[in-house]
Amino acid sequence: MLSPEEFLALGQQVLDSQPFSKLLGARLAVFVPGQVTLMLTMKPEYRQQNGFAHGGVISYLADNALTFAGGSALGIEVLTAEYKINYIRPATGSELIARASLTGNTRRQAVCRCDVYSVTDGEETLVAVAQGTIVARSTGAAE
Amino acid sequence: MLSPEEFLALGQQVLDSQPFSKLLGARLAVFVPGQVTLMLTMKPEYRQQNGFAHGGVISYLADNALTFAGGSALGIEVLTAEYKINYIRPATGSELIARASLTGNTRRQAVCRCDVYSVTDGEETLVAVAQGTIVARSTGAAE
Amino acid sequence: MLSPEEFLALGQQVLDSQPFSKLLGARLAVFVPGQVTLMLTMKPEYRQQNGFAHGGVISYLADNALTFAGGSALGIEVLTAEYKINYIRPATGSELIARASLTGNTRRQAVCRCDVYSVTDGEETLVAVAQGTIVARSTGAAE
Amino acid sequence: MLSPEEFLALGQQVLDSQPFSKLLGARLAVFVPGQVTLMLTMKPEYRQQNGFAHGGVISYLADNALTFAGGSALGIEVLTAEYKINYIRPATGSELIARASLTGNTRRQAVCRCDVYSVTDGEETLVAVAQGTIVARSTGAAE
Repeated sequence: MLSPEEFLALGQQVLDSQPFSKLLGARLAVFVPGQVTLMLTMKPEYRQQNGFAHGGVISYLADNALTFAGGSALGIEVLTAEYKINYIRPATGSELIARASLTGNTRRQAVCRCDVYSVTDGEETLVAVAQGTIVARSTGAAE
Repeated sequence: MLSPEEFLALGQQVLDSQPFSKLLGARLAVFVPGQVTLMLTMKPEYRQQNGFAHGGVISYLADNALTFAGGSALGIEVLTAEYKINYIRPATGSELIARASLTGNTRRQAVCRCDVYSVTDGEETLVAVAQGTIVARSTGAAE
Repeated sequence: MLSPEEFLALGQQVLDSQPFSKLLGARLAVFVPGQVTLMLTMKPEYRQQNGFAHGGVISYLADNALTFAGGSALGIEVLTAEYKINYIRPATGSELIARASLTGNTRRQAVCRCDVYSVTDGEETLVAVAQGTIVARSTGAAE
Repeated sequence: MLSPEEFLALGQQVLDSQPFSKLLGARLAVFVPGQVTLMLTMKPEYRQQNGFAHGGVISYLADNALTFAGGSALGIEVLTAEYKINYIRPATGSELIARASLTGNTRRQAVCRCDVYSVTDGEETLVAVAQGTIVARSTGAAE
């Protein structure tokens, strides 16, 4: 049985082993069973043509937060099988925060939801919501 | 009325104005009304922990291809309102290709689909499929 | 400005004007701005081959709850543009309850989420979760 | 190895064992590995308040067509784990036709797509498109 600190360290270790997450600089702020917070500091090169955070950046963060939420719940190596995302408004802030949580699961599959916020001067604005399926790696999904 | 060359140049100009697309190095191979092909050469830093292309990279490519397909059909400034993606198998190749096309549209909204392929030694493997809604910017969606 | 009773009566009136909802016998239990509860008593003819509620019945309830939640928030005539649903476990109970709420909206578009529960002996089990986009009718979506 | 006639008969048998499909009167027109066509004759009681086919009816048909397409490909007992649907325009015709096909699969999971058409005077109009995941029953998804 892992302590909360060990559990977070384990999550951080997985995040650190993802080159793409390192490239973007995502940080794991919360990682407890069924609950995850991923953060990303915006940089000019993460924008689209109108100066907002590119949808691909928001998608990356939501996708990864869903995966970590599913993995934290299933306690095994997982893959995101699928998800959908709705962009609600442009992300114009200096920070992105993705909070994902477990909605329901069976032994080998977890359905999770994620809210993505943009932070401006300490104030959070909901910019996107996502929902997806995370599966145990050996299920064969995405393999 | 734009010539095919002018139309492609216009799409390329929009892609070039997206800092995140420049960061990743996406290229526009096809851009005609209702049909788009985006390509991305894989780099080690685009991977996840198992060495496959990170889902966030595939999502970025699908999201952007859907947006360009919608924009090419609506002929105006657009935003992706939402999309869903299914990962079918891991992307292990050296190149990613996203082909998106218009499925149906009204004046201010387009529903598009996208197939993402991974290329290994010139052979394409379908790794993900997506479907989403692209809306005219003034509709207020995602604004 | 409508009273809560008038607001609910208005929602009931819309539900009553949907022949398919009357055929299935859906009831509107809660209808306030941004929050909706739809209920459906299971009948043997709503089942699939294993004796569970057919996915189409659960989908109907989620779809309609999302639409009502969006309509209650936008305060105008609306259509569901799209939604996605994850089935979490089989619905084996005698009653289905769909609770939908507004997640975020602009003037002409609302993103809503819905949880569908199956009730057995008074106990609720989450059987499906959905997320979708509801648009003002004149937007041209689905028209 | 089943003949095409036996394969179709098997699919028809599954459809007949779904009380909800019998209630609505869905018919299986095509059922070959990876390809399915489901049809439904519209009745006044399948409408929503504007006289169009209710989204729940279109959803039912798409959901079921996806499930059958997945089942036809996996060759085992399956469940729909999730799907998303985009309504493109109102269904005003006398008949609905859902054509679903396999997009990609592993041993225990199939990703399928579906197009739903409304037929008026023999002419088909695309009214909705869907995409979803069908899983082998023992995977534990939706169980």
